[in-house]
Amino acid sequence: MDKKQENPRCIEVCLTPKLFTEIQTRNNYIVVLVDILRATTSICAAFENGVKSILPVATLEEAKAMKVKGFLVASEQDGRKLDFADFGNSAFNFSREAIGGKTLVYCTTNGTRAIEIAKKAEKIAMGAFINLTALTRWLINEDKNIVILCSGWKNKFCLEDTIFAGALADRLMETSQFETYCDSTAAAIDLWHIASPDILGYIEKAAHRHRLKKLGLDDVIPYSFRIDSTQVVPVFMNGEISDEQFKNKKYIR
Amino acid sequence: MDKKQENPRCIEVCLTPKLFTEIQTRNNYIVVLVDILRATTSICAAFENGVKSILPVATLEEAKAMKVKGFLVASEQDGRKLDFADFGNSAFNFSREAIGGKTLVYCTTNGTRAIEIAKKAEKIAMGAFINLTALTRWLINEDKNIVILCSGWKNKFCLEDTIFAGALADRLMETSQFETYCDSTAAAIDLWHIASPDILGYIEKAAHRHRLKKLGLDDVIPYSFRIDSTQVVPVFMNGEISDEQFKNKKYIR
Repeated sequence: MDKKQENPRCIEVCLTPKLFTEIQTRNNYIVVLVDILRATTSICAAFENGVKSILPVATLEEAKAMKVKGFLVASEQDGRKLDFADFGNSAFNFSREAIGGKTLVYCTTNGTRAIEIAKKAEKIAMGAFINLTALTRWLINEDKNIVILCSGWKNKFCLEDTIFAGALADRLMETSQFETYCDSTAAAIDLWHIASPDILGYIEKAAHRHRLKKLGLDDVIPYSFRIDSTQVVPVFMNGEISDEQFKNKKYIR
Repeated sequence: MDKKQENPRCIEVCLTPKLFTEIQTRNNYIVVLVDILRATTSICAAFENGVKSILPVATLEEAKAMKVKGFLVASEQDGRKLDFADFGNSAFNFSREAIGGKTLVYCTTNGTRAIEIAKKAEKIAMGAFINLTALTRWLINEDKNIVILCSGWKNKFCLEDTIFAGALADRLMETSQFETYCDSTAAAIDLWHIASPDILGYIEKAAHRHRLKKLGLDDVIPYSFRIDSTQVVPVFMNGEISDEQFKNKKYIR
């Protein structure tokens, strides 16, 4: 473990977008947006399969307008694909054949609204179990404070986003470059420690999982909790999401 | 364990007052207000020491006006007693000599504002570790749905209120009269299970505890986490808090 730094960076966890106005980290921070089921997992999956960039939109009206302009559009409501859209928001829709090299417009009930809320941050990175290690490394290199913003479900706390926040905070704290005075961070780390030996078993009790199950959409759940299946780090800046990992490393697929 | 009921009652945990508008339990519910450090613990302590009733007020202006009218007033800001008040809000202020048989006006930064927010509930009961068992029994008898409302700290999530919510929800769920589809409840119960073997050790990491420590006010902390030191169940109805336990049982001190 590294020596404790003199000026450690802060970690703060925001359990739902509605609590974002209460965060105490105001300067020099990156927001990590978390919507495990599904926006941030699906966005990571799209970059893994070669999407060029993603334009997040917050409303159905914007999504429809972009469809008319000729963009590929992913949009669903309460877990179901909308008629006008090319895709729902499930990670499994984004095959390399369908999206490789293209720009995708992405509209969700939770995730994109959270991007709107977090726009004051210097950058907004997409966090998911499937890019946990790549994201952790990227965050360490960025040298900023970090606010982990859980999308939750209709402004409510949700378990799956919180245990991811705990997993990420736990890894960052291990580097001794960070400190936290935030009870939400402590709670998220504790919940992660309970969940980590059997994540799928733990998440059985999550209310959102029960909602997806009712809709017959729970096929993506094992995928969504598989740690490190991709190295992408999708980051929102200037209205679009692109893969920072790809840019920095000049990685050729 | 009792047989699972056909129409179980709901438990929902609200992690901060700011999330109260998102609760899904809308009918036939009691709110359990939780502000372990300090309002609800102190209110229980005041009833344990014979206060007749408590009038909660949400603003300093109201508290000052009631002082002018001749009431005893407890009021503090950020953990410090205000000059015009008779008491701060610490449980240790409320000796039987000072408050026995009297009416007390109580103003706090967190607790009383949460009462304002929860006014649509049929009743608002005060929850604290010091009245956990008495409160649990009373709630079981009341036969209503239950929303446990954590006061938090300046609208933020706090650990001490959440682990109390978990302790209470855990006891209620054990009766098999209740069900929950709320991720906050599941998380609170899990955090309680981590905390319960050594509550004071666990709460060391709570940010609010560090704030009280800075102010030299942490003498009430062991008292605030001592389970079942009183049998009172203070309940807010029609603008005042009185002891339901005392009323129901015609208990003479």
